[in-house]
Formats: sequence, structure tokens, C-alpha cells
Amino acid sequence: MIRSMNAAKTPIRRLLMTKSHLEVPSYGKIIQGSKYTPEYAQYLRLPNGEVGSFFHDVPLELDCEQRTVNMVVEISRWTNAKFEISRNRPFNPIIQDQKNGKVRFVDNIFPSHGFIHNYGAIPQTWEDPTVESSHEGVRGIKGDNDPLDCCEIGSSVLSMGEVKKVKILGSLALIDNGELDWKILVIDVKDPLASKVENIHDIETHFPNLLEATRNWFRDYKIPTGKPPNEFAFNGQYRGLSETMKVIQECHDSWRKLLRDSETNDNLPQVVRAGSGVVITPEKLPDAPVPKEVGIWHFIKNEKA
Amino acid sequence: MIRSMNAAKTPIRRLLMTKSHLEVPSYGKIIQGSKYTPEYAQYLRLPNGEVGSFFHDVPLELDCEQRTVNMVVEISRWTNAKFEISRNRPFNPIIQDQKNGKVRFVDNIFPSHGFIHNYGAIPQTWEDPTVESSHEGVRGIKGDNDPLDCCEIGSSVLSMGEVKKVKILGSLALIDNGELDWKILVIDVKDPLASKVENIHDIETHFPNLLEATRNWFRDYKIPTGKPPNEFAFNGQYRGLSETMKVIQECHDSWRKLLRDSETNDNLPQVVRAGSGVVITPEKLPDAPVPKEVGIWHFIKNEKA
Repeated sequence: MIRSMNAAKTPIRRLLMTKSHLEVPSYGKIIQGSKYTPEYAQYLRLPNGEVGSFFHDVPLELDCEQRTVNMVVEISRWTNAKFEISRNRPFNPIIQDQKNGKVRFVDNIFPSHGFIHNYGAIPQTWEDPTVESSHEGVRGIKGDNDPLDCCEIGSSVLSMGEVKKVKILGSLALIDNGELDWKILVIDVKDPLASKVENIHDIETHFPNLLEATRNWFRDYKIPTGKPPNEFAFNGQYRGLSETMKVIQECHDSWRKLLRDSETNDNLPQVVRAGSGVVITPEKLPDAPVPKEVGIWHFIKNEKA
Repeated sequence: MIRSMNAAKTPIRRLLMTKSHLEVPSYGKIIQGSKYTPEYAQYLRLPNGEVGSFFHDVPLELDCEQRTVNMVVEISRWTNAKFEISRNRPFNPIIQDQKNGKVRFVDNIFPSHGFIHNYGAIPQTWEDPTVESSHEGVRGIKGDNDPLDCCEIGSSVLSMGEVKKVKILGSLALIDNGELDWKILVIDVKDPLASKVENIHDIETHFPNLLEATRNWFRDYKIPTGKPPNEFAFNGQYRGLSETMKVIQECHDSWRKLLRDSETNDNLPQVVRAGSGVVITPEKLPDAPVPKEVGIWHFIKNEKA
């Protein structure tokens, strides 16, 4: 598996080199199963037609000057289904997370409806669960074993499986079940406001109250399932750009280490990616119904919403 | 037309007499055209199979002891399409409002997504545009020529065309383009919290921050189209139960007057309702796509959201 990744002539390597400031190559999708069932899977189709991995084959493309990076959209704003890149399945398709054998939906916490961002992952990054962070303020906390999460704040609704070039603005360090789970705030470089926002301060100016709503959302979203509010490192303070860039770089380094180590360590997520010659055939079926209870609006008492 | 309404033996009259505290008779729907096009119309099918009018044939059923009334759901929470009972078309189907020849969608005002209530109308009521209100605080302002609007605050998403028995909780008096446009706050009698909320004060207890969000929503929702913020009578204060019951009763009286006067006055909305023998055939077509710009999230500056 790893061998194909190291060959400079693979399609992936070529992708990494054909950059423009706004465009990403035209990725496609291969869909299997009915949406909202455990059988659903959306695979990445690379521009050369081959099946690829959202986790390993979409290039990071971290541009330290433009402060841009690639994002894989997992969840459209205002939807509830918890879709995510599968950490373990070959080619890492986007599937719906399961809890107790059922596909998972997040609850609606007043005043929000579903997710309040276009939510996704930064490809070729990994929050290493085996290593204690050396990052000041979160020292000693281990990663959540997934690619870095990101929240796209642009005004449009993005679609699951889209690959977007996004501008990095800052971050929030969530502590979820004792694991470090960074949320990187980004904006689609094509958003009308993208040229006006450079950092956290600009978000407050151009997207008034979004920062507070974001922190409240991550704090409260599991409360209806009986869990306590989530906690944050740094007292919930948003982190600036240089610190956030460093986190992304570190998680990219962890991902590179994962690629190397997964060859010999079966406990790590196994890497199956483009170049394997495997073909995945589309078998799209009609969407399953969304359960009626997903429409409930939950009011959290004694909290400023 | 009017004659059939006065006959005590019409199906409608019988409906008015078979009441229970929670149930409404099983109404059906007759759909024509593609949703999100000017051709779309949803007609009411009465329990006896005949086509009826949402405006004139669904009974008010104002119960002053239980403080309940009937509601016709026009818009599901979290949607944007401005569906409403047609004031003028025969049988008053639910159609999508148009502006400049295009079907109308409300904008998303952060932090809300579409409408934040299940929105609808109270049948057999009318805000008379020809008469200056004698109601203290809104004296001299004329009605908006439509049935009374209502906002259902229960936790579930209701569907267009549903007829619900709802509990009356209070109201907000919007001044929209100089016209009086009451918003009656109600809750589905079947909502799990219905037995706990009796008035505006209880809404704040059980649905924290909903009252403020509701006022902000009505104030701001037209700002992205270039209009100024809406204004309110009573300085935006919510009105209590007895005052609200009185408003409903008055608008029911106005509706009764409309029925009488429309026979002789062509300037009034013409009344075509059940008993006419007219048949409407369903011709449901696939939904049209919702325009991409309906997904935009608008941030209103310098206002507390």
C-alpha cells in the first residue's frame, strides 16, 4: 500500500503539484447504499477516475503564505446526520457514524438547527491518540484518532464529499471525552467575504455572534443524550492563526508517521488508498427516511443560548 | 356560495359539533403542480372527501375554557418557502407567495434557519383592512387583509396543510408596512410540554430565549431584501392571554362580516367553499429545485441576534 504512495509518478503526487489559488481538481463521488442507513458509503473518485481515500489521497496543500488548506466536507450546514470519513475502512469513505447499532444524528439545540457550520476534515492530518500533546496549554492530552475537524463559516451550504480550498482563521480546542479534538475555523476561499476575514477578530466583525454560538454549540450538543457539557482547553478561548497553523502542521506530521507505522503496526488505522487497482462500483439507493425525532428542538435550561 | 354555509346540514357544520380535546377530524390534501413553482397549490380535502377551503371551511373551534383553537399549518419550521393560504383563489389553497413574478423564500438570519416556528393561520379569522382597530394600543391601524397568523412553538416539525388543535399562549403585534399583523403564539395540544405552558411567562420558563428570538426574527427578517426592520405595537411587548383571546374573537367576527359582505361587495375576497360541487383533481409533480441562494446565511450587523 505504502509503496504506491512513495512513487512520485502516482496521480496523487501530480495533484499536489498542480495548484492554483482558488481551484481544486474536479473530484467525483461513488455512492453505495441508502443515505441514513449503515450501508451508506460515499467514496472519492479521483480526477483520473480511480477510487481514492478522502483521508490519505486528497492532498493537504497547506500554503503558509496564503494560509489556505484543503477541506473535505462531511456535513452540510443545518443537517443532523453525523457523517464522517471512516478511519478504518479501505479507501476511507464517508459513512454515517453509529451509536448502539443505529445511525447517529446530532440533536437540535435551540436556537440552532443541526450543525451550524459546513463541517468536515482536513485531509492528510491525524490527531495521534498514542502521543501526549506537547502543545502549550493542552500538554499531556492525547488526540482523538481522527483527521483534524474543521468548521467552514461561509454563507453558502456546501455538499458532502466536496473538496474545498479554505482559508485558515483560527481554532478552538475541545476536550471531548478526555481527548483533544481541535476545531479549525475556516472559510471557503470563494466565499464573498473570504478576502475580508484573516483571523478570529475579523470573524466577530463580519459574522457577529458566530464565535459565541460556535462555542455554545460544541459545549451543549451532547446534553440531550444525557452527557455533560463538553469542555475546552484554554478556558474556551479561540486560538490565533500562527498557533493554528502549527497544529495543522503537527497533525500532518502525525499523519506522515501514521503512514509509515501502519505498515508494521496492526493497531493503527490501516492505509488503503489510490493505486491499489481496486474498483468500487456505485450502487446508489433511495434515501432512507430521517427519523421523526430528529426534528425535535431541545431547549437547554439555565444556559445562555 | 354563502347559502351553503348557512345550511346547518353542510359537512362543515357537523364538524363544528364533533369536538374532542385533542383530536381534529382527518383532513386530506389535494396537490397540484410542482412545489416551489407558481403552479403549486395544495387544497384541503374534507373528511367527507369534498374539496374545502382552508380559510372558510376549517372551523375556528375557539374554546374559551380550554383556550384552544384550530390552526392550519402553512410553513414547517426550518424551511424558507413562504407558503400561505391564498386569500382570493376559489377554495383558498395553500400556494407560495410571489414577489416580482418569482416564488418567495424568506432569508436566513443568523442564528436562525428559515422560519423558527411552525407557522400558519387561524381559520375563519380575518384582519379587516377596511376598519381601523379599536383595540387599545393599536387604535386606528388597519388589518392586513389575511387570516390571523400564528406561530406554533412545540418541539416537533409540523407539515404544510395539517390542521392542529393548539393552545393559545399570547401574542405579538407586528406593524408590517403600516398594517396590523398579529402573531398569535400557540402550542400543539399534543406537544409533551403543552400541559406546562399557559402563558407568555411559561414560554420563557420552558423555552428559554424563544421570546427574544421570535421578536428579533420578525424585526429582522426582511432586512436582507433592503427593507427597514419591522416595528411592533406596544413597544414590542408580548400581549397576554385575555387580550389575545379578544383579538381572535374580533377577527372571527370580522370574518363573519366578510362572509356576509362579500356577496355584495366585489372588492372583498370572494368566498368559494365546500358545498359548491366543484371537483379538484390532484396533479402532483416532482418538486422544483430550491434556488441555491436560499442557502445563504445573513448576519445582521450592530444588532443582538
